[in-house]
Amino acid sequence: MIQATLFQLDNYGPWTTTPAPRREMDLQTLQSRLYADVASAVGRHDGYAFYTRGDNVVAFTGGMDREDHRALQRTVRNRYPVTLSAGVGGGATPLDAVADATERLQAAGSAQDADRTEVLSGDPVDANEEFHVAHYDVVDATGRYTDSRDAFGAYLTVSRVYAAVAEKLYREDDALAFFVGGDNVIAVCPPLSRSTYREHVDAVAEETGVELRVGVGAGTRAVAAGSTAKEALELAREDEVSVVCGGEVAAEART
Amino acid sequence: MIQATLFQLDNYGPWTTTPAPRREMDLQTLQSRLYADVASAVGRHDGYAFYTRGDNVVAFTGGMDREDHRALQRTVRNRYPVTLSAGVGGGATPLDAVADATERLQAAGSAQDADRTEVLSGDPVDANEEFHVAHYDVVDATGRYTDSRDAFGAYLTVSRVYAAVAEKLYREDDALAFFVGGDNVIAVCPPLSRSTYREHVDAVAEETGVELRVGVGAGTRAVAAGSTAKEALELAREDEVSVVCGGEVAAEART
Amino acid sequence: MIQATLFQLDNYGPWTTTPAPRREMDLQTLQSRLYADVASAVGRHDGYAFYTRGDNVVAFTGGMDREDHRALQRTVRNRYPVTLSAGVGGGATPLDAVADATERLQAAGSAQDADRTEVLSGDPVDANEEFHVAHYDVVDATGRYTDSRDAFGAYLTVSRVYAAVAEKLYREDDALAFFVGGDNVIAVCPPLSRSTYREHVDAVAEETGVELRVGVGAGTRAVAAGSTAKEALELAREDEVSVVCGGEVAAEART
Amino acid sequence: MIQATLFQLDNYGPWTTTPAPRREMDLQTLQSRLYADVASAVGRHDGYAFYTRGDNVVAFTGGMDREDHRALQRTVRNRYPVTLSAGVGGGATPLDAVADATERLQAAGSAQDADRTEVLSGDPVDANEEFHVAHYDVVDATGRYTDSRDAFGAYLTVSRVYAAVAEKLYREDDALAFFVGGDNVIAVCPPLSRSTYREHVDAVAEETGVELRVGVGAGTRAVAAGSTAKEALELAREDEVSVVCGGEVAAEART
Repeated sequence: MIQATLFQLDNYGPWTTTPAPRREMDLQTLQSRLYADVASAVGRHDGYAFYTRGDNVVAFTGGMDREDHRALQRTVRNRYPVTLSAGVGGGATPLDAVADATERLQAAGSAQDADRTEVLSGDPVDANEEFHVAHYDVVDATGRYTDSRDAFGAYLTVSRVYAAVAEKLYREDDALAFFVGGDNVIAVCPPLSRSTYREHVDAVAEETGVELRVGVGAGTRAVAAGSTAKEALELAREDEVSVVCGGEVAAEART
Repeated sequence: MIQATLFQLDNYGPWTTTPAPRREMDLQTLQSRLYADVASAVGRHDGYAFYTRGDNVVAFTGGMDREDHRALQRTVRNRYPVTLSAGVGGGATPLDAVADATERLQAAGSAQDADRTEVLSGDPVDANEEFHVAHYDVVDATGRYTDSRDAFGAYLTVSRVYAAVAEKLYREDDALAFFVGGDNVIAVCPPLSRSTYREHVDAVAEETGVELRVGVGAGTRAVAAGSTAKEALELAREDEVSVVCGGEVAAEART
Repeated sequence: MIQATLFQLDNYGPWTTTPAPRREMDLQTLQSRLYADVASAVGRHDGYAFYTRGDNVVAFTGGMDREDHRALQRTVRNRYPVTLSAGVGGGATPLDAVADATERLQAAGSAQDADRTEVLSGDPVDANEEFHVAHYDVVDATGRYTDSRDAFGAYLTVSRVYAAVAEKLYREDDALAFFVGGDNVIAVCPPLSRSTYREHVDAVAEETGVELRVGVGAGTRAVAAGSTAKEALELAREDEVSVVCGGEVAAEART
Repeated sequence: MIQATLFQLDNYGPWTTTPAPRREMDLQTLQSRLYADVASAVGRHDGYAFYTRGDNVVAFTGGMDREDHRALQRTVRNRYPVTLSAGVGGGATPLDAVADATERLQAAGSAQDADRTEVLSGDPVDANEEFHVAHYDVVDATGRYTDSRDAFGAYLTVSRVYAAVAEKLYREDDALAFFVGGDNVIAVCPPLSRSTYREHVDAVAEETGVELRVGVGAGTRAVAAGSTAKEALELAREDEVSVVCGGEVAAEART
């Protein structure tokens, strides 16, 4: 199984407007710092956490046990004016795992239930399922977009590309893609073939006019798979090819 | 004129892979903390800064002079392993202002020019143009999405809604919309009529099936306009209407 | 007058043990981050803030008005699980200013009064009094202590030196000295003569066996005086002398 | 053996003045945040880290292996403009452990050696030696000092008390005491008798006129011993006694 955690701020919406709407830059500062602490803690356990909605953070947490989750909840409580609940779940695909984690948390009460505080719902699983991390970037993003378009236009372009690849992976492959800044998208996928990655890149190019490149790595932990993916992406850049599968994925692909 | 600043990390892409690809959660932590510092500094000057691509942060900075920008660049240099350049510009609309700020920075060199470090390009303008801040959220987002969909599906839905409203505002109105977490979108707009906001909300509902609500405020500084917008959104929520214009916008709308 | 602010966490002691004693490293993380935010905000207004007891932070805040203090209190409330009160006062000497700021805050209630929350007591003053900042370090601290003693012994030695110089300045000169890390002590002083600084350095050497060096700067704002002091200290290091007065202080000293 | 780590910023002194002296509040912000990250990481492994000189942080790290240290060094490198070296050592007493950790690091080069970067020197030990954590605070510190003295005077008083207890423990008992904010001192000690703690409290009262209270806990990890100490201190406060030994210490003391 693949293990996922959904971290959710407790009753956050109401807090942001009580007793009066709080200043937006204060909220952005709070959300960013809190996510940085979650990312840092999950990263230390060789997992990946993605900002997504800020008050809902999706993470792949294979190897983090209940006590590790409790420790993170405790540090949030001791550092921030808000508290954190978590649902832990597992599944055969990244989507199944996140869906399971979500259901565990939903079963414990609504995100805006004033009485649901610091819930830890669900249980860690035996996270020995191999999955892929696919790390995408845009070919010559600096030359074609950052250095030549207005900054918002460049951002919208990157957003459109992200949306295109994310929808495709979600619907066809039970894979979850996240925008991670710059021109980078990271997808957590079930094992997919090299040709599937290539077809997606081609389809996105046709749909948006933007050329992607992707490096793929495999592993039972996000960091291991993700590091291989990053190295594969470097090779893709050097060799000017659109898909490079690294490590074990490459070995399988050869056979 | 409206004043905008494009903050850009210097040569950041290459840094993230030198000498070898850095761990993703370390990069996410760095980007989030650095953005929190930028948001915090811009907020102190009554402006708004938006994460956008993380290595490119778009901000509305009316009232921040060159020295204020320099102070922020200095604190980044003294706290982080990377440096920050900035382009400052102005325009009659939010888009014009951001486009001008972008050009100022592009004129000083590429984002991946190893010799372009801590540039401050362009000049503050007389920022006395009134603009709107429109603060959107999703009607019953918690009940309909957060508490009932899988967390990634709920995120994708919110992303689609953001994309729909952002494209519309960008193409038709020279207005720039940013996803700010949860189910919230903040748009910086030229003065638009109440019916324009309503038409957008209707069009988004038709396109995505998701119902938005929006509060609008006006001002020459993002914080003032944004605070009015937040209060107007609270009224929209209470009164179950789709558009509420607050403060001066309301007065104009009545006439 | 010189303006000082005493920042004090509200009812912090009881919070640290409610409902049960909180983990010490969580408390240290909270205190350090919160102090970093205070130092950062005060620094932006050209002031200096010193950690001292962590739950009580002493700052020289000439130029910060009530609104600036309110903004800092607001950001703390929006980012941390604790709130911040402040007393603002003025005096002819650094000690008088801090004593006045303290009294203002004490008049508003006890540090452990559960009802005293986010008080802002006292008023900014016309902060145009010139004062000195004296920046001390230990001659060859690296060679004599850091590289040759055990780390705790080296720390105790630096602490002893700090205590010696702080007591002398406090009792004889109404000047307040703060340990700022490494082998550095910064004192905020009324204008003192070069020979006074030299006598203190000699007395500390006799009392503790440790040789200090000091650079002195003058100004009506901590940053200006402090920067001159740092440059003067660099000169003292290069020229191997024990006291260097920079900027205007030097000019006065020549006459 | 007891395991200790000395964390040391590489070539930090020169960095603070290159190319010109950096602003003091920027340095304080950097040091505080960096320490917060170290404290947070060490705390996660059930250890304690103390700020001491900021550029030299003393930690008790039983249970942290080489990889855990490397991970912390990596995150510092990826988040800050400075790098971190570490010496790991062991000894029969806290002082022996810190002295050993210091020597390991010193053997690898000077703190100001421009070529010594991110050294990890020495090795983790079998950290199964039981030690004490003694948590002191000042009797009625709020009423007697915080609410009635000027803030700097109150701080100096607390500093004097810290110095008195720290010198005594260091010289007589191979125990290391650290000021941790407020009116709190935490000492890491070899197992000492209840009467030794009482004699120290009495001696400090005589020397400084200030009354201390202390709670003592025992364990092979700082967090376990420290939590017991905190609970014991709460009991001491309630029962108005000067020394309470908690957990196993209490059991031994009864026999």
